[in-house]
Amino acid sequence: MSWNTFGRVFRFTTWGESHGPALGVVVDGCPPGIAVTEADIQPFLDARKPGQSKYTTQRKEADEVRILSGVFEGRTTGTPISLMIENTDQRSKDYSEVAKAYRPGHADYSYDAKYGFRDYRGGGRSSARETAARVAAGAIARLVIPEVTITGWVEAIGSIAMDYGRFDAGEITRNPFFCPDAIAAGEWEQLVDDARKAGSSLGASVACCAEGVPAGWGAPIYAKLDSELAAAMMSINAVKGVEIGDGFAAASATGEANADAMRPAQGGGLDFAANHAGGIAGGISTGQPVTSRIAFKPTSSILTPVETITREGDATEIRTKGRHDPCVGIRGVPVAEAMMALVLADQKLIQRAQCG
Amino acid sequence: MSWNTFGRVFRFTTWGESHGPALGVVVDGCPPGIAVTEADIQPFLDARKPGQSKYTTQRKEADEVRILSGVFEGRTTGTPISLMIENTDQRSKDYSEVAKAYRPGHADYSYDAKYGFRDYRGGGRSSARETAARVAAGAIARLVIPEVTITGWVEAIGSIAMDYGRFDAGEITRNPFFCPDAIAAGEWEQLVDDARKAGSSLGASVACCAEGVPAGWGAPIYAKLDSELAAAMMSINAVKGVEIGDGFAAASATGEANADAMRPAQGGGLDFAANHAGGIAGGISTGQPVTSRIAFKPTSSILTPVETITREGDATEIRTKGRHDPCVGIRGVPVAEAMMALVLADQKLIQRAQCG
Amino acid sequence: MSWNTFGRVFRFTTWGESHGPALGVVVDGCPPGIAVTEADIQPFLDARKPGQSKYTTQRKEADEVRILSGVFEGRTTGTPISLMIENTDQRSKDYSEVAKAYRPGHADYSYDAKYGFRDYRGGGRSSARETAARVAAGAIARLVIPEVTITGWVEAIGSIAMDYGRFDAGEITRNPFFCPDAIAAGEWEQLVDDARKAGSSLGASVACCAEGVPAGWGAPIYAKLDSELAAAMMSINAVKGVEIGDGFAAASATGEANADAMRPAQGGGLDFAANHAGGIAGGISTGQPVTSRIAFKPTSSILTPVETITREGDATEIRTKGRHDPCVGIRGVPVAEAMMALVLADQKLIQRAQCG
Amino acid sequence: MSWNTFGRVFRFTTWGESHGPALGVVVDGCPPGIAVTEADIQPFLDARKPGQSKYTTQRKEADEVRILSGVFEGRTTGTPISLMIENTDQRSKDYSEVAKAYRPGHADYSYDAKYGFRDYRGGGRSSARETAARVAAGAIARLVIPEVTITGWVEAIGSIAMDYGRFDAGEITRNPFFCPDAIAAGEWEQLVDDARKAGSSLGASVACCAEGVPAGWGAPIYAKLDSELAAAMMSINAVKGVEIGDGFAAASATGEANADAMRPAQGGGLDFAANHAGGIAGGISTGQPVTSRIAFKPTSSILTPVETITREGDATEIRTKGRHDPCVGIRGVPVAEAMMALVLADQKLIQRAQCG
Repeated sequence: MSWNTFGRVFRFTTWGESHGPALGVVVDGCPPGIAVTEADIQPFLDARKPGQSKYTTQRKEADEVRILSGVFEGRTTGTPISLMIENTDQRSKDYSEVAKAYRPGHADYSYDAKYGFRDYRGGGRSSARETAARVAAGAIARLVIPEVTITGWVEAIGSIAMDYGRFDAGEITRNPFFCPDAIAAGEWEQLVDDARKAGSSLGASVACCAEGVPAGWGAPIYAKLDSELAAAMMSINAVKGVEIGDGFAAASATGEANADAMRPAQGGGLDFAANHAGGIAGGISTGQPVTSRIAFKPTSSILTPVETITREGDATEIRTKGRHDPCVGIRGVPVAEAMMALVLADQKLIQRAQCG
Repeated sequence: MSWNTFGRVFRFTTWGESHGPALGVVVDGCPPGIAVTEADIQPFLDARKPGQSKYTTQRKEADEVRILSGVFEGRTTGTPISLMIENTDQRSKDYSEVAKAYRPGHADYSYDAKYGFRDYRGGGRSSARETAARVAAGAIARLVIPEVTITGWVEAIGSIAMDYGRFDAGEITRNPFFCPDAIAAGEWEQLVDDARKAGSSLGASVACCAEGVPAGWGAPIYAKLDSELAAAMMSINAVKGVEIGDGFAAASATGEANADAMRPAQGGGLDFAANHAGGIAGGISTGQPVTSRIAFKPTSSILTPVETITREGDATEIRTKGRHDPCVGIRGVPVAEAMMALVLADQKLIQRAQCG
Repeated sequence: MSWNTFGRVFRFTTWGESHGPALGVVVDGCPPGIAVTEADIQPFLDARKPGQSKYTTQRKEADEVRILSGVFEGRTTGTPISLMIENTDQRSKDYSEVAKAYRPGHADYSYDAKYGFRDYRGGGRSSARETAARVAAGAIARLVIPEVTITGWVEAIGSIAMDYGRFDAGEITRNPFFCPDAIAAGEWEQLVDDARKAGSSLGASVACCAEGVPAGWGAPIYAKLDSELAAAMMSINAVKGVEIGDGFAAASATGEANADAMRPAQGGGLDFAANHAGGIAGGISTGQPVTSRIAFKPTSSILTPVETITREGDATEIRTKGRHDPCVGIRGVPVAEAMMALVLADQKLIQRAQCG
Repeated sequence: MSWNTFGRVFRFTTWGESHGPALGVVVDGCPPGIAVTEADIQPFLDARKPGQSKYTTQRKEADEVRILSGVFEGRTTGTPISLMIENTDQRSKDYSEVAKAYRPGHADYSYDAKYGFRDYRGGGRSSARETAARVAAGAIARLVIPEVTITGWVEAIGSIAMDYGRFDAGEITRNPFFCPDAIAAGEWEQLVDDARKAGSSLGASVACCAEGVPAGWGAPIYAKLDSELAAAMMSINAVKGVEIGDGFAAASATGEANADAMRPAQGGGLDFAANHAGGIAGGISTGQPVTSRIAFKPTSSILTPVETITREGDATEIRTKGRHDPCVGIRGVPVAEAMMALVLADQKLIQRAQCG
């Protein structure tokens, strides 16, 4: 079956297809009394929205969010918050080719195998357009965890990685790649533009960091903070890998190299000598920044013809024309941030449920 | 709060601490009529059980499983299956040091931060001993998906990786490292033994593959097959990274290189030219092998003293003596296999719930 | 927190307030391939809709439903079905009195105690207007269980009960009371009209019956069919009691009088000599009609002044003017039917998940 | 499928059959730091335990509970609490008759219809013996809500009801019927003994009241306090009806008669003039006592032969010999109390999750 709800205490349910009249999300379990208007949500949608630069899909969507319930006199009431975004640029395109043959890498074949049937317009429910609803919900989640600051960025596109020696957080919003390294961002302009013109596509690595998470969030054993983050990130379209802290680098390390020594802090409290663990031990936050890395595969829509089969099982070729992101990882940044916010808001409420 | 249940339709709940009288699992939602005895479960527990070679912890546990409910006349009844494993080797050790100071990398500090209190004997609930319960549940899960064959192996320990050119599945059970490459296994003997003698520890990469999964399993959007696998794997003690298919390698690939072209198969059906996607598209299985890679950090228990703080916040040092795995990733193989089985059993039942 | 989702496999989430711009429901887990249009849903909403006779509230709502997602080319796709109903008659009324003082019997005080805050316009989220969303979801549920026919009716209003000797199912849709006894319906005209004119209100008993439920639906132990029905019915506004089968009458019976003897049926199969159990044994359906009775309290909105307190805790009186149902149980019939359909659809899918 | 977990934040999962080696429960989500030993649980099990008087089944069970996890140094750790009770009196009886034919009123036929198969020894999983696990969990729940006092009693057996004018809470533990009216208890001695001797059985009405519940517990819309209570009570074996407050009596009342007027209390706070609502408005507690009534059907096991069919569908008769409760409602009192405690503990934690 489909399972379109995420979260345990702070829960959200998304709905909508790429080419339906609208998409949306219902956020349930939000604490009451939190000030919120559409203006608190819109900037995050704007950051994700298509058509902002030539490096993303040229579909034009206003992605204007409307609050339909759960807010009264500017504050959350504790009842479900329904958010809706209308689809405005459902270009009347000829989908007959996609309807007939399966695009490799897309969910066309697997949806048909599962449901015997699919909405083939723009990928239907499997379209990354669904992530707009997550971003809207994530904006609410951020209001639930004002003590936390979440920042995401792209650290590599294709084979060109940024240099952490040049990391400048202020740079992230100054280029169309959410890149904290201005020089890498410059190199990516050419790289992504070439891919776009060639009808090719590129993968990307995205990093996401939450600062201000207090020690003690996380719900062992099967809702560990890292387990929830892994589920959240891996549920984003095109994501194929998730790391917490050092991730796969830890697999080749020794215990000595991987130790996060602890010391009394100068003014009281606690300092860590390192953060190999990414701020999580035993599934519970340690008070350090919570860090995650995410791998986005290259967009499966490419101009080069790829062998495939028709719904009837006959051999054919398909090439994906039209509007698409040459590197879907770029617009993945606000989505990854949203998912991290949603997991943390849930864990905060879980924590106070059990531990007061 | 704690959240010790995993799964949506085929669900299991584990309980127990490292040094309590017993640990166990309740499996709920299992289909009726499946033949099962303790003998179907024990071999998987034996594969995970400590003390089998000098490369794992020397704690001696029989890990004998007892079926307490849910099975009648040798068949599952559809009611909850309760499995219990008694702890027999809770060596009466002096835990006063661990009670007083936090072992970096362990859950000592974060559990105290969350609960204000912890069972410090052998890590209590955060001990990897909990994974015995998962392995027992996983054995039941395998019986629910007889069409699927799950195989896990270690592909790297520390900085020494196996060579896939020498992959021999038959080799996996012939060495104490679950390694399909006999030569790498030989090299690891020295490597792990050196680490053990030095009181050091090593990380490891584990791979896990499920063959025979039909197309159509997976529950979009937030219970996608890959999302569930990511949560399942990341919930295993010491895991810091999860990949599906090409994982992070896909992030530096182009769309052309990453395409899994589809062709009509010779005798009918469908062939894929590649499996970069790891058998999952849009969160739903494609019929190809489902593949995942998992990063285990090195065991945090090392003999080298590490700076830390006491419960009162004072500076101190701690070194972890006693029995522990020099490379916790090795015994992670049966656990990873179990988690994959548990996710797939759940998805199989989810699939027939919605799609008949 | 609020918990606005019901169901385990076939799940629905409602949202919306009495005086917000709209209300709606997201139905998740619906099987794919089911033919559905707004025309399949609207008649059920019309049956529940206010202003249909002088015996219900005079609020005028078109209650027109729109399908926003999950349906493609007239068939369900297996993805979430989003249904929206706009509020059109949010009469600009003076709510200052309700904002300041608590209406006894309403959720005013308890919502404030819980959330510290409430949307006081027409009861906000606690308004029975929420049940429109349930009725819309229930229309989808009915399509999932075409083998089942669900019929609800009013069996008593205030102290005047219908006579089962005059039961005529065809009569139910012929009077404004959903009453299968034309004579009782006639008596209720006067009774309800008197109450309406006096600004008084009346309780009611509603019965609901599902025919065609096969034996074997129900999920022991804590999602038993009767347990789920009890939760579903008791969650309806103003409901204070739920019975299955003979209900409280069984409490004064003997085992002999309460036995539902079983016999081979003439043409094969099985006949029951009676249905004291209401079609459920051990939480699982027996193949007999599933029967439930539900008690609705009288509407708490009455013209007679009632002692109460202000938000500040001072003594005052309140009388509820304006539009309201003199007997909320009448419009409870389509809601009870919807809840029964929703529970049965869920149980049908649960059943095939575990038992194939 | 089976669904053996109840609760949302404070959750418990029961397992075990009437004639298996043991039964038990895993309580998850319990706050840490609560003092608990077996001695806190045992008295509640003793109150429920069979064989205490001639008015209950003569099966002899010690029902000794063991804590297997989740408690360290006498306090809960926040990890799952596993409780086990061994079955000691599984009398080696001839079950061949029950295996072959269906006992009307029992779950024999419906379990077979669902699972194709059943553990016929003493009813297997459908046996009321499962409620021992609920009572054990309920004892933990009570410790989570020390502010609440829960009291249950029998108010009617068969057609003889107690007189509320003679209500004396102290009397409840002084007679084997949990009856607060000594005179009624006296009358029931004869009534129940006659039924027992005749191999007949009697239904019963049970009341349950929770004092000390603060205003504000309850989770609209689908986890309303009354909805959760209804589900909890209806999931108890043999229960056929649940009322909150006035229940079905409210259905024949007018709004004026049913109003619970509110007044400022003498020393500050709030007084209610009545409690028709049973302490719940809009699904949320009002601060008044939470009251519920529950109908237990007569035990289906009777000596009088009842027509039934065999597994093969042939006509036969069955009479249930051996040990059984002539009035299952009596031992239902501690079970109803436990379920109320479990629901309230869950709602308390839910409340602080959302509202801090």
